[in-house]
Amino acid sequence: MQTLIWKSLSPARQAEALTRPALNDEADIGTVVREIIASVRARGDEALRELSQRFERAPREQLRVSEAEIDAACARLDDDIKGAIAAAIANIRTFHAAQVQPVVRVETQPGVLCELRTQPINRVGLYVPGGSAPLPSTVMMLAIPAAIAGCREVVLCTPSPASDEILFAARACGVRQVFAIGGAQAIAAMAYGTETIPKVDKIFGPGNAYVTEAKGQVSRDWRGAAIDMPAGPSEVLVIADESANPAFVASDLLSQAEHGPDSQVVLVTTSPRLADAIRDELKAQLALLSRRDIAEQALKASLVILCDDLEEACAISNAYAPEHLIVQTETPRALLDRLENAGSIFLGAWTPESVGDYASGTNHTLPTYGYARTCSSLGLADYQRRYTVQELSAEGIRGLGPIVERIAQAEGLDAHKNAVTLRLQALAGTAQTGSQQKDLS
Amino acid sequence: MQTLIWKSLSPARQAEALTRPALNDEADIGTVVREIIASVRARGDEALRELSQRFERAPREQLRVSEAEIDAACARLDDDIKGAIAAAIANIRTFHAAQVQPVVRVETQPGVLCELRTQPINRVGLYVPGGSAPLPSTVMMLAIPAAIAGCREVVLCTPSPASDEILFAARACGVRQVFAIGGAQAIAAMAYGTETIPKVDKIFGPGNAYVTEAKGQVSRDWRGAAIDMPAGPSEVLVIADESANPAFVASDLLSQAEHGPDSQVVLVTTSPRLADAIRDELKAQLALLSRRDIAEQALKASLVILCDDLEEACAISNAYAPEHLIVQTETPRALLDRLENAGSIFLGAWTPESVGDYASGTNHTLPTYGYARTCSSLGLADYQRRYTVQELSAEGIRGLGPIVERIAQAEGLDAHKNAVTLRLQALAGTAQTGSQQKDLS
Repeated sequence: MQTLIWKSLSPARQAEALTRPALNDEADIGTVVREIIASVRARGDEALRELSQRFERAPREQLRVSEAEIDAACARLDDDIKGAIAAAIANIRTFHAAQVQPVVRVETQPGVLCELRTQPINRVGLYVPGGSAPLPSTVMMLAIPAAIAGCREVVLCTPSPASDEILFAARACGVRQVFAIGGAQAIAAMAYGTETIPKVDKIFGPGNAYVTEAKGQVSRDWRGAAIDMPAGPSEVLVIADESANPAFVASDLLSQAEHGPDSQVVLVTTSPRLADAIRDELKAQLALLSRRDIAEQALKASLVILCDDLEEACAISNAYAPEHLIVQTETPRALLDRLENAGSIFLGAWTPESVGDYASGTNHTLPTYGYARTCSSLGLADYQRRYTVQELSAEGIRGLGPIVERIAQAEGLDAHKNAVTLRLQALAGTAQTGSQQKDLS
Repeated sequence: MQTLIWKSLSPARQAEALTRPALNDEADIGTVVREIIASVRARGDEALRELSQRFERAPREQLRVSEAEIDAACARLDDDIKGAIAAAIANIRTFHAAQVQPVVRVETQPGVLCELRTQPINRVGLYVPGGSAPLPSTVMMLAIPAAIAGCREVVLCTPSPASDEILFAARACGVRQVFAIGGAQAIAAMAYGTETIPKVDKIFGPGNAYVTEAKGQVSRDWRGAAIDMPAGPSEVLVIADESANPAFVASDLLSQAEHGPDSQVVLVTTSPRLADAIRDELKAQLALLSRRDIAEQALKASLVILCDDLEEACAISNAYAPEHLIVQTETPRALLDRLENAGSIFLGAWTPESVGDYASGTNHTLPTYGYARTCSSLGLADYQRRYTVQELSAEGIRGLGPIVERIAQAEGLDAHKNAVTLRLQALAGTAQTGSQQKDLS
């Protein structure tokens, strides 16, 4: 871990220190993915089956996972893990259900009623990666808000073989359509539809470079599908003062580091003594981890920033815009109003990042790579569309009409003006056109 | 206007009828814009001044519009239009202020507190096109939610010369930084910053093909800026039954048609008699419009769909996903629960689209080209980021910890588990690590 003394750096060096490393933009990934998408669009299930043979650990002819297979998966699982998943689901459901917004209804002037309403996005696709470990938590985070929003069709794709945990979580979260297919081809199938996989309107979920590229490509095609948010490596920033427990902080840094060699880990502290103690703890804890090689690589690129006070610490965090922000200070909540641009904030010694990754109730799908400056933590709103409704009475158009006419005239849009003028004339009984004056009473 | 009898069409023909025409994807626009962006990034204001010489109607050395210039513009304007703009601002402000959301705060289980909070996006850029008519309404629609959200920096770019109406509206909406520069170069300047134009986090507003392409390019670069929504030609769909006033409906169709030759206009009606009457009205009203050539071109590509009943009309509208949806039926609100995928809905005879374009209070920045299936009407939320906060007490981690440990174990993430285990051990007084047990009381 590189240590920086913040006030000793020039503004340019400070900015450089908080700049994420460039992502590997391998040009051939774009080409490979373009070909995969084209072949899925052209040949549907046939292409998916061929790609399954080439890429899946357990290639399948039947892409859809049957109810019987899900029954069997659920039967194989321990009650222990089933209970843990059910408890996590309950919390996540509670928090996301609390995000339901009432209709906003305002009479902006007499007779002019404006409403802001929400509706579910009709068809959503969830992508759950396979890879080194099964990720039932991803299923919960993606599927629960879809169910609460009331999305009509929820499709889940995951590489084959789908793990028991994933199948159990999918059923527990009310997902009815599970397909054992992964990679760019799964994204293409959900974006455009095939004989067996329904086309969706929006695709959610993390994935490898091919999945990410495929999401980018289909989201730039209006015939494709929208996506949840841009992707990047996972990251944490911890703000700690001398009251922090070094073992706790070290364990939180390692939680992030074990995600992948490209994970970003930043410690910002007012206490050099704490920084040293954390370094010792990291060494001791690292030795015991099964994924220590990954964590070690991530830690190499990580950063310790020594700063003067917590105000400076907040400013550093705001400039970095971390996906996860852990605050281990004497009075963590006191900093909340000064913290900006973080995806999710974890307050205090008893709130490790892993509670939010799994079970506290918040969503673990968060903007990373600096996107937290403009993107939101995934939530119910991402499964809904907001739209407006307006309704004017005769009184409403009488009052508002002249204002609209005047602005339309300034913008040189006659027809916009005329649409109002005709109505005002009808109300005044001076209409020049219109064959059904009887309906205008 | 082509007339289709809906039930006589095959499903494939129906789908085809509702498919938007392909946009002109001129490859060289991408190249030209890439070069403009590269030159603004490399040479800042110098490049902007050169591009101003090449592209602006009134090229400028001083890019920033001074307070004195804005004073002069305001002094030149009639009280009449100033009053109309002020009245529109009041309504738009009322409706967008009503969209402020309280913090969502839930204790998902004892001692586990989860919050959903919002914050303004710090720096936003507004683009207001010049072109054939000044668009003060665009200023209001983009700047008012920025002010209500509390965005710290609000930058507005518009081609030179900036119209008096635009400058007046900018001041009235609290925009302090106005720059008279348009096109792709304005987008590049706001996305990356120059010596005089501040870098922003997110860019809002409509524009021509170059502006649209530039927004696409900067939004795909993580060093660039986020954007409001994908762009496409403006469009309206009107659902009308035999009670509708044909003059009103015709005036609404023309309001849309006059926007541009690529505007989409669709009438869905249960009444062939109404369709005929509207056709006559269109002819009569068209003759009086200053932009009749544009409107005529748009009408040529437009569609009249005859359907059996209002349920079918709703299904057609839902499949098309219109930007604007006008409902002129006997009881328009009765259809509201059946209407999906529309950007903004206008209910009844006294609610022409132009009231929403200018002054009712709703935002006129809406998803078009079918994006209304997943994108929202622009609103306060687009100027904010949502983020989560969580805080566990000792009781909270005691209750939640074992659940998290179990799922982390299933996912093979030791460090995630260990971050909880260390805390549970500390609470139980059996900690193996951690040097500051005194702080864990």
